[in-house]
Amino acid sequence: MKLYKQQDLANMEDKERARFVNCLSGFKSANVVGTRDRHQQNNLAMISSVVHLGSNPPFLGFVMRPHSVTRHTWENIEESGVYTINQVGEEFFKQAHQTSARYPREISEFEACGLTPEFEDGFHAPYVAESALRIGMQLVEVIPIQHNDTALIVGEVRWVGVKEEAVQHDGYIDIESLGTMTISGLDGYHRTQRAARLSYAQPDEEIKELDIDGSSTGS
Amino acid sequence: MKLYKQQDLANMEDKERARFVNCLSGFKSANVVGTRDRHQQNNLAMISSVVHLGSNPPFLGFVMRPHSVTRHTWENIEESGVYTINQVGEEFFKQAHQTSARYPREISEFEACGLTPEFEDGFHAPYVAESALRIGMQLVEVIPIQHNDTALIVGEVRWVGVKEEAVQHDGYIDIESLGTMTISGLDGYHRTQRAARLSYAQPDEEIKELDIDGSSTGS
Repeated sequence: MKLYKQQDLANMEDKERARFVNCLSGFKSANVVGTRDRHQQNNLAMISSVVHLGSNPPFLGFVMRPHSVTRHTWENIEESGVYTINQVGEEFFKQAHQTSARYPREISEFEACGLTPEFEDGFHAPYVAESALRIGMQLVEVIPIQHNDTALIVGEVRWVGVKEEAVQHDGYIDIESLGTMTISGLDGYHRTQRAARLSYAQPDEEIKELDIDGSSTGS
Repeated sequence: MKLYKQQDLANMEDKERARFVNCLSGFKSANVVGTRDRHQQNNLAMISSVVHLGSNPPFLGFVMRPHSVTRHTWENIEESGVYTINQVGEEFFKQAHQTSARYPREISEFEACGLTPEFEDGFHAPYVAESALRIGMQLVEVIPIQHNDTALIVGEVRWVGVKEEAVQHDGYIDIESLGTMTISGLDGYHRTQRAARLSYAQPDEEIKELDIDGSSTGS
């Protein structure tokens, strides 16, 4: 086991430190965020920091840096108050990664990267047709993280489009069956392989493995 | 493709909604957070919301609910200002899940769940000996998320212990080789299978696959 102290991290070259620290949180969610400005210009951005905040009301958050390559996404969300979150599947993860390139404002990443914008009735922001799980989001709050000039974007789920066969009777969604990817660091993309669903933990009971639909396994 | 509207989510039974909404963000990080109170009582809690905030300074965040089952973790962090984040590996993911049971304050989840607390020199919070990547964290800021009574705990990395052979020359850590798991929903645990590392995206260049060490593949 090797120990890296604070000074060892400080001494790393910037790109090396960025690659290293980006691996520390564990596997990340892989999503692209779709937005649209008032001139009907679409935008799409790779985001690996979407996080669950609560289920009632259904809230999701993600971390943004206002002046970074994702600034058009930021501006469109502030202007329109809506955006979509689209899970990245294995059939289009390279196109999704390509959206992180620094395109000029007048270029749609959908077009530049070969992805298809579609719309739910009356919802301003485009979703990604190639995604098997898309979410329409309404901005709730932008929370500045003072110490490093980022912000947590908090939004409420307005609608969810998902392949029906992935949704189990108990509410669990088999996102592995959708081909949803997960990310390590800045550039590592992974498929997943289910180990188990586990029973609700109780102090005096042993954990049991559940079937995919949430029922106890026969074993 | 099935469309769930806001009212469909509101109409779900609470547990069904919790399972459904917890799958929307995509795959989650799997970590256990180690803390210790002033009476040397250790605590360990499963957390699936650790997220990268920045690499210089190296900041990680996670979401907590102050009055939930993780309240002892919350109190210990507020009291001591330090904690550890430990990636959950495939050899101990069931023990890690078991830490989410509601144990009384005087019970150490390390002991109750069969995990081993160890200490870095002079650092108050215990790490998990079974974890192949452990991080010592200093609390920086607690940011309340007003709209749903949660908070983002922001901390700075003080030290990292990791199996040396996983760290590549360019800084990337091969966390898949460490057996690090990823989570779907409330109770789904998954191993990963690398698809590719991808080159840095540029507007006018095609994405290339990289070798694990960050070099271009021979193909």
